Amino acid sequence: MNSFISVEEVVTLAAQLTFSKYAQKGKYEMTTKSLKEAMLRGDVMADKCPSRAILNHVTSRWGVLLLIALRGGTHRFSELRRKVGGISEKMLAQTLQALESDGFVERISYPVVPPHVEYLLTPMGEQISEKVETLADWIESNLAHILKAQEQKSEKR
Amino acid sequence: MNSFISVEEVVTLAAQLTFSKYAQKGKYEMTTKSLKEAMLRGDVMADKCPSRAILNHVTSRWGVLLLIALRGGTHRFSELRRKVGGISEKMLAQTLQALESDGFVERISYPVVPPHVEYLLTPMGEQISEKVETLADWIESNLAHILKAQEQKSEKR
Repeated sequence: MNSFISVEEVVTLAAQLTFSKYAQKGKYEMTTKSLKEAMLRGDVMADKCPSRAILNHVTSRWGVLLLIALRGGTHRFSELRRKVGGISEKMLAQTLQALESDGFVERISYPVVPPHVEYLLTPMGEQISEKVETLADWIESNLAHILKAQEQKSEKR
Repeated sequence: MNSFISVEEVVTLAAQLTFSKYAQKGKYEMTTKSLKEAMLRGDVMADKCPSRAILNHVTSRWGVLLLIALRGGTHRFSELRRKVGGISEKMLAQTLQALESDGFVERISYPVVPPHVEYLLTPMGEQISEKVETLADWIESNLAHILKAQEQKSEKR
């Protein structure tokens, strides 16, 4: 759940890399944009890059489905549980917490009796859930083709 | 790894559902398109829908990374192992096999000594890997923002 390096380390490292890259080319005048872009960029192919952990949260079995379910707006815990078929209370709570700690989901707790808690996507959550939904949509739309391919494969064996 | 129902069952069920849906509305004249669309459509929110297993394959820890790595073209086993940081031989073999059985990856074995095996994306694999790459790209590009959000969350606790 924890990132491997801090934001400060990423920023410092990226700034150093960017500087040495441009220095080698003899271009000392770095634009704000090129530095900013390099600072922000992760690499999922690199074993230790913190982007991997985030990718794992949003592509986890239930992470994917919750991000899609939350695109419908603000939800209560029980509503999410009904919407995402087969999820247990434990996994729902755990997955919501992971998505919350990455800044994709906001949890709003109203100080009333009995307690009233709501969950919604943050602006970042809206953006990433759109990508996730596009992926799931593709699978849903192409299901018959994929099942056909699976059958053909298993017949060959 | 196996789908829960066969293609025939999906098609029959979808046709029945579509018919009853339209029958209720008093629209007996179904267009070919609406029936075809309903037949092809899965639902990842439904517990038993076979689209879930496929979603799990392509969003698995290594499935995501292999689909992206293979976008670069035909690869040998050893090339994929080098490209995807941290993957073991066992997990690489298992993940390739799952993607192959879903029809996303093609394995070509040349009858030579020593054996020469290559892996590449099928046309379906090209399409789905594009969606997966878009998702990973978004995370890579927004890494600094996400890490910042994570730090702010952990400070609040």
